[in-house]
Amino acid sequence: MREKYIIGIDLGGTKVFTAVCNMNGYVVNKIKFSTDVSSGKDHVIQKINDSIYQVIRLSNISTEDIAAIGISSPGPLDVSRGMVLCAPMLGWDNVPLCNLLQEEFKVPVCLENDGNAAAFGELLLGAGRGCSNLIYITVSTGIGSGIIIDKKIYHGKHDAAGEFGHICIEPDGRKCDCGNYGCLEAYASGTAIARIAKELVRKEKYSKLLEISNNATENIDCIAVEKAAYEGDGLSIKIWYEAGTRLGHGISILMQILDPEIVIIGGGVSKAWKLFYEPMITSVQQKTYRHISKDMTIVPAQLGDNAGLQGAVMIAAKKCEINNNELVRCG
Amino acid sequence: MREKYIIGIDLGGTKVFTAVCNMNGYVVNKIKFSTDVSSGKDHVIQKINDSIYQVIRLSNISTEDIAAIGISSPGPLDVSRGMVLCAPMLGWDNVPLCNLLQEEFKVPVCLENDGNAAAFGELLLGAGRGCSNLIYITVSTGIGSGIIIDKKIYHGKHDAAGEFGHICIEPDGRKCDCGNYGCLEAYASGTAIARIAKELVRKEKYSKLLEISNNATENIDCIAVEKAAYEGDGLSIKIWYEAGTRLGHGISILMQILDPEIVIIGGGVSKAWKLFYEPMITSVQQKTYRHISKDMTIVPAQLGDNAGLQGAVMIAAKKCEINNNELVRCG
Repeated sequence: MREKYIIGIDLGGTKVFTAVCNMNGYVVNKIKFSTDVSSGKDHVIQKINDSIYQVIRLSNISTEDIAAIGISSPGPLDVSRGMVLCAPMLGWDNVPLCNLLQEEFKVPVCLENDGNAAAFGELLLGAGRGCSNLIYITVSTGIGSGIIIDKKIYHGKHDAAGEFGHICIEPDGRKCDCGNYGCLEAYASGTAIARIAKELVRKEKYSKLLEISNNATENIDCIAVEKAAYEGDGLSIKIWYEAGTRLGHGISILMQILDPEIVIIGGGVSKAWKLFYEPMITSVQQKTYRHISKDMTIVPAQLGDNAGLQGAVMIAAKKCEINNNELVRCG
Repeated sequence: MREKYIIGIDLGGTKVFTAVCNMNGYVVNKIKFSTDVSSGKDHVIQKINDSIYQVIRLSNISTEDIAAIGISSPGPLDVSRGMVLCAPMLGWDNVPLCNLLQEEFKVPVCLENDGNAAAFGELLLGAGRGCSNLIYITVSTGIGSGIIIDKKIYHGKHDAAGEFGHICIEPDGRKCDCGNYGCLEAYASGTAIARIAKELVRKEKYSKLLEISNNATENIDCIAVEKAAYEGDGLSIKIWYEAGTRLGHGISILMQILDPEIVIIGGGVSKAWKLFYEPMITSVQQKTYRHISKDMTIVPAQLGDNAGLQGAVMIAAKKCEINNNELVRCG
């Protein structure tokens, strides 16, 4: 029998990644394209289809070698119906994404929330191998999470479990983009770090951070705050300290509610691990019941930017396995 | 075949309840006795044994009619080994409670954390019937919770999941008895309500609450604050409003992390439902992602003070069922 492959798709805010992976989640080839919201839903779907054909050609295989498609997407989703309920960055509302791709490629298509997909990827291929219960946290533009219980993705009633970025950690605190006040995301996301940095720089006369940002406050982004901190800028170090402390507060809440075997932290901002790890862990220790914190495990993600994509592929692979097993059993 | 029964035990801070229940969790007879910490571990175990014999006699059955024993106890526990790891109110450290009762009664003995047992009781016999994922919150002297996922109790790595009372909802907030600051329990438990009431009464010249408490501030307890609020005392109404708002903040965090089908609130303080429900629900609505809060269900518990005991009995009943099934299968 010819080897089978799975297509992995990572739907992002401005970019889409499409990959051919083998049945074990190994990425054979990956390409990316930019999404153009203004061009409409059908146009984006067409571009996704095109990207699949393209990556298949690139891998010297044919559509008949594809066993399934796995998609990682920001929520809210209806996972069981394969629908993207609302994706403002794509201009989408109630798009039956799985059905659309299934019609084109005639294979099973799985859709999963990006945090959940990444959690599942880390469970099977990354830092969570061998665990049954884990939490994956993504710290990026925003903050999200995925929860694995009993080796399965936990979805919740509205497929909305793991909305970790919007737990309130400071009543009457900073305003969040979601409209509420005091959300974790308003303190420790990449967007928040850049925003807080701009506010503080405006108050200071001199800051290395401003210098790094070509002396224009509006240029300051999270990467600049990271760079300045590594260069010893006191203001930037303080910003990371505060973000780490707040993230630790959030994690202490997860620890006390779910007492997981491991907490895995991924996402672009988490690459500044050295800058926020110490205040984060101090804050978790301080705010977590000793019986839990005495031997907790908090580690960086291992799959990097591929976590969501590889997780979605493994969900699709599991689905094929089940179908095959069922066929075996029925036959 | 003669009908079988299960013994349910609810280990509390100062009292122990022992009951004979049928295999469906129905309480046939229940008795209680006070624990005397100073008299030592063996004495308390002896009193538990005595209470079991007593309630069996009271029910006109014999020890041979007992299929199993289920115990609900405050944590920390080691559930799989049937150990009470630490129970300051009983003066216990690492007590192999299940083994001790098993030796005496020669039947399977199950031990479960009180919050978890109550959650399981409400799942099978109370407000959570028909659900798969739910959270039970107990608001009493302290605040705890039990989490049901996929119709099973979720324990966590250290059997410590659901430490809901000690999530930090206000950094640098009120000091909690656990030593940390800003725990939910320091704002919305019965102990906290009484403590806050005392502080406020000391500042006021006149309060109906003081009158109800025989004009002695030190007499003020949670029951008095409830009574005064029902009699229209502004100070007491404000205290319940604040407690409800804080509890709602905590619940919003659970909602966003676990997106459960239902949240069930029990425990002594929850009997003041009318006094805290509105501010609680307003706070949950305000702080929860709209996609989750649009159709959430938050209800009072149905089993009252028996929730933990009946839950423990049902855990034991399930264990017997499994054993019987296995016997049937093997035979």
